[in-house]
Amino acid sequence: MDREEQIKRMKRQVGIDAASMVRDGDVVGLGTGSTAVYMIEELGRRIREEGLRIEGIPTSYDAGVLARRHGVPVRTLDDVERIDIAIDGADEVDPSNRLIKGRGGAHLREKIIDGLADVFVVVVDESKLVDRLGTKCPVPVEVLPLAVNPVMKRLERIGGVPELRMGIRKDGPVITDQGNMIVDVRFDYIDDPAAMEAGLNNIPGVLENGLFVGLTSLVLVGRLDPQGQVVVTRRDT
Amino acid sequence: MDREEQIKRMKRQVGIDAASMVRDGDVVGLGTGSTAVYMIEELGRRIREEGLRIEGIPTSYDAGVLARRHGVPVRTLDDVERIDIAIDGADEVDPSNRLIKGRGGAHLREKIIDGLADVFVVVVDESKLVDRLGTKCPVPVEVLPLAVNPVMKRLERIGGVPELRMGIRKDGPVITDQGNMIVDVRFDYIDDPAAMEAGLNNIPGVLENGLFVGLTSLVLVGRLDPQGQVVVTRRDT
Repeated sequence: MDREEQIKRMKRQVGIDAASMVRDGDVVGLGTGSTAVYMIEELGRRIREEGLRIEGIPTSYDAGVLARRHGVPVRTLDDVERIDIAIDGADEVDPSNRLIKGRGGAHLREKIIDGLADVFVVVVDESKLVDRLGTKCPVPVEVLPLAVNPVMKRLERIGGVPELRMGIRKDGPVITDQGNMIVDVRFDYIDDPAAMEAGLNNIPGVLENGLFVGLTSLVLVGRLDPQGQVVVTRRDT
Repeated sequence: MDREEQIKRMKRQVGIDAASMVRDGDVVGLGTGSTAVYMIEELGRRIREEGLRIEGIPTSYDAGVLARRHGVPVRTLDDVERIDIAIDGADEVDPSNRLIKGRGGAHLREKIIDGLADVFVVVVDESKLVDRLGTKCPVPVEVLPLAVNPVMKRLERIGGVPELRMGIRKDGPVITDQGNMIVDVRFDYIDDPAAMEAGLNNIPGVLENGLFVGLTSLVLVGRLDPQGQVVVTRRDT
């Protein structure tokens, strides 16, 4: 089995392990990303084969499409009173289980839904573990289109290196599911993620940012051992 | 002259006084509301009669329409490097010149533009002065439509009484110029407006709120003396 296939198998296993935490009757926040895909697929299998009854709240357009394809009933935040469990990926996880999310541009809806859940399970592979947030990834900031210029100047003043995220299959900037733009901000280091999260959100024109502090209940980390076998470890907060 | 006519005259005088602070070459943030209307009208007069050259950045669709009608050149935040002065109204002003804005639903763009200005001049009549913010007005919070329900629950948990703002000439909720909804939140009292402002903005799904802390340079307050004469006083921050 080649490396790519092994990684796929690892992500699938992490997704399946996370899906096994969902109980009958749960309202489930459905995350976005390459591991969450397998979690949604597995929930569909459990519905078909085990008669599991759940309602899914997708964190993105993409997650909604996937859920419907796999037969997971889709609801909106207006339909439900609570979210029992949310399962979602992350781009960086620090030793306190604080996260950077938003490489896929879905972090605004993800934060709303993950933040509402009684239990928030993060699914990653070990390449996402960092000693300090911001090491590998910039912090994605969702910005109102009319405010992109002043927000970028403000981000520079607080020591960031902001870059407007440009489309690949679209000319000009990436536009989010909510119709906004994304500014990716690199920082030399993020000393206090909680203060940074609140500080960024307080900039007029900023809708939300990819720092997730104090939301994670537990992290499932997948890795491949030297024999290429999948190992999933659980790290509680 | 009846009372209504006197109040109109007072607002016009405050608007004219504020417009007199604008200098040739300025980039001017154009506020929204019943007093800002006269400021924009007066800027138009100065352009026509005095040859004043300025560029205006409207804080709302409404302010943009007015500016064009009065011959004030309209620019966007992408066109300018700075804003020299912004002139805008407020719904409440406390003794430290902190504000509640947003009765007109324009507070998101207002905060972006007023917050960028080197000098931010607030124009009000004395009925807007309060000892403590939140006394008369709820705090307007602009919320992503899909997040209205969870945001309202969250606002209740922090002690607020939230109400979704409904339209009068439109069925269902008011929709802002940015396509979002407004939740008006009453609080028994707001102990620390700066902390409240940042705390509200940190709720996922909240785009901005109507608390303006640390932005005001000076306030022009209009009142009618017992003889019905207009008196404008200036309160620096």
